[in-house]
Amino acid sequence: MITTDICIIGAGPVGLFAVFEAGLLKMRCHLIDALPQVGGQLSEIYPQKPIYDIPGFPDVKAQELVDNLMAQAAPFHPTFTLGERVEALDRQEDESLIVRTNEGTQVHCQVVVIAGGLGCFEPRKPEIEGLADFEGKGVGYMVRNPELLRDQRVVLAGGGDSALDWTIYLANIAKEVTLVHRSDSFRGAPDSAEKVFELAKNNKINLLLNASISSVSGNGRLKELTVVGKDKSRIQVPTDHFIALFGLTPKLGPIADWNLAIDKSAISVNTFDYSTNVERIYAIGDINTYPGKLKLILCGFHEAALMCQSAFKYVYPQQKLSFKYTTVNGVHAF
Amino acid sequence: MITTDICIIGAGPVGLFAVFEAGLLKMRCHLIDALPQVGGQLSEIYPQKPIYDIPGFPDVKAQELVDNLMAQAAPFHPTFTLGERVEALDRQEDESLIVRTNEGTQVHCQVVVIAGGLGCFEPRKPEIEGLADFEGKGVGYMVRNPELLRDQRVVLAGGGDSALDWTIYLANIAKEVTLVHRSDSFRGAPDSAEKVFELAKNNKINLLLNASISSVSGNGRLKELTVVGKDKSRIQVPTDHFIALFGLTPKLGPIADWNLAIDKSAISVNTFDYSTNVERIYAIGDINTYPGKLKLILCGFHEAALMCQSAFKYVYPQQKLSFKYTTVNGVHAF
Ligand SMILES: Cc1cc2nc3c(=O)[nH]c(=O)nc-3n(C[C@H](O)[C@H](O)[C@H](O)COP(=O)(O)OP(=O)(O)OC[C@H]3O[C@@H](n4cnc5c(N)ncnc54)[C@H](O)[C@@H]3O)c2cc1C
Ligand SMILES: Cc1cc2nc3c(=O)[nH]c(=O)nc-3n(C[C@H](O)[C@H](O)[C@H](O)COP(=O)(O)OP(=O)(O)OC[C@H]3O[C@@H](n4cnc5c(N)ncnc54)[C@H](O)[C@@H]3O)c2cc1C
Repeated sequence: MITTDICIIGAGPVGLFAVFEAGLLKMRCHLIDALPQVGGQLSEIYPQKPIYDIPGFPDVKAQELVDNLMAQAAPFHPTFTLGERVEALDRQEDESLIVRTNEGTQVHCQVVVIAGGLGCFEPRKPEIEGLADFEGKGVGYMVRNPELLRDQRVVLAGGGDSALDWTIYLANIAKEVTLVHRSDSFRGAPDSAEKVFELAKNNKINLLLNASISSVSGNGRLKELTVVGKDKSRIQVPTDHFIALFGLTPKLGPIADWNLAIDKSAISVNTFDYSTNVERIYAIGDINTYPGKLKLILCGFHEAALMCQSAFKYVYPQQKLSFKYTTVNGVHAF
Repeated sequence: MITTDICIIGAGPVGLFAVFEAGLLKMRCHLIDALPQVGGQLSEIYPQKPIYDIPGFPDVKAQELVDNLMAQAAPFHPTFTLGERVEALDRQEDESLIVRTNEGTQVHCQVVVIAGGLGCFEPRKPEIEGLADFEGKGVGYMVRNPELLRDQRVVLAGGGDSALDWTIYLANIAKEVTLVHRSDSFRGAPDSAEKVFELAKNNKINLLLNASISSVSGNGRLKELTVVGKDKSRIQVPTDHFIALFGLTPKLGPIADWNLAIDKSAISVNTFDYSTNVERIYAIGDINTYPGKLKLILCGFHEAALMCQSAFKYVYPQQKLSFKYTTVNGVHAF
């Protein structure tokens, strides 16, 4: 069991800055994130893109901002559980909380801060007959380790960058690659699309356009799928793997069951301290909502600062908080 | 008459960032500040000190942050009136506003944003008989141009850094320097205090400790003042100048008469858009108050962003505002 003062769910920019603000008030933090790295949307979706509206930075690359926030939090030695998803919350007799992940990690804390952004990113699953039955048995929604596909027959579906990029990559590794896409043009980068058309022309891959997959079948393991064309044609494609690459969609997930007041899949908070309707649970950053809410990084920073002032009373019930400027007081590592 | 979309009173960090946020929404800004330079408290009080709680900056010198904010606002070409103090506000028939300064500058705008920080800095004036009669006639509250004191007799009063620093500086310039202080120890930097004691020991200055000035007198111009010791001793000190250095104290000033709801010398706003009780007038940064308010720079940044979303309707009454990320939309200079 990990023990800390504040357990922060989500290591995006807002969760990371909360570590610093908590540290100023001598509160320790443990962060949990479902992704294998910190930084939330910034590191996962647009690490190399510049952001222009972080105050004091005429521009800053998303990953650079994340690195800076990690450096700013470093004096307070936050601890991390990455690649695990928070699933459950238990309240103890003394009102403290235990947070549990899908992998069984447990964190005991006085305060829970949900900085979960848009929620956990989960693959968007197409509606295909029999699909769920073969998940993990040939059907998947992301390529975790391409080596597992070496010399195998693989069918990919999708029209975005990851469908194109994996098609190109696997063309050299798999025994047979088939890309199925419902249109005849691609949303992904034009030069990747061009390369895919080239591979198809040279018979390095099979390209089935204006088509979609209607069903999958097998015998315990995936064996075959049915591709239906817009022209109503039907073909059976024998395969070892089917990977549906229709993008990731964020889900609030099990947090939605914590009795928190929810408004349009965001957590309602007050603007006094960004607390939720449940004692000792706060929500900051993209995941919360209140009148006037803007889903901006700089707003999450403000919310983190006010939240910490309020959370202090649960961590140090005997102490009175006095407000001090960092310029005057300095930063005291612990 | 200057014409703009938004007139910002106060060119501190929060007013400067508001220029950038307004610019993203294609709103032009004019800023007015009583100080001769931009940057508010940061440039005036602690330009060389590091700030540690600006998100994304493990530390940043106050003046450096101001410079960065100026660079970030630059694409939107803000205009400035510096060294003038806003005194009056007139509402036009079409609800637009005219802001007027003590020097008669007028700014016509659709929206007024008060980012006045702690207010205008004004010298703290001691209670001394006859003092007001000689203001500008030998009595002053700051040293604007030390050259005017060359070869003159000068009496300084105070125990802080500026009293010590000016005593040391003027010892080389003035004909005679007397420092009067009500205690026998100084609040200012220990090495400055030591230097002052040294100068007194070597008869370069007169040091009157445990003493204060009870009255000033003269004949149209200052001629003499009376110093009373704690031991009830009294001496007359003939002098050309008396400079009372008891620090600056911020004053809300005439803004306090604009029918704005005031709470403990701050302007009450709501947290939906940081508007005041008076239509088209917003208040952001240190000058406002609401439940949970923290007088932090990062909070003012958030307030500026939400304020602009709301102010938009007065500048572009016909348009619907659509929210866009800078990373996606870029920054379009005008
Ligand atoms: C393309 C793009 C451009 C953008 N441009 C800008 C811009 O210019 N300016 C700006 O201010 N904002 C911009 N944004 C928005 C900005 O990225 C978000 O406001 C910001 O990421 C919110 O930070 P956060 O920490 O609240 O959440 P996130 O960054 O979303 O991080 C939340 C983290 O919580 C984790 N999580 C959620 N639920 C769980 C759970 N149950 N268990 C474990 N972990 C969980 C997620 O995995 C995620 O890593 C942009 C967004 C995108 C997509
Ligand atoms: C020593 C010290 C250390 C600090 N350390 C930190 C820190 O570490 N972190 C942090 O976040 N904050 C810190 N602060 C607080 C920070 O400086 C303020 O929060 C910040 O300056 C507020 O910005 P502002 O733009 O709202 O107002 P200000 O910086 O006060 O600027 C307001 C401006 O408005 C002008 N003005 C006011 N009234 C009028 C008028 N009627 N007409 C014309 N001009 C007018 C003033 O001249 C001033 O220039 C510190 C402050 C001090 C003094």
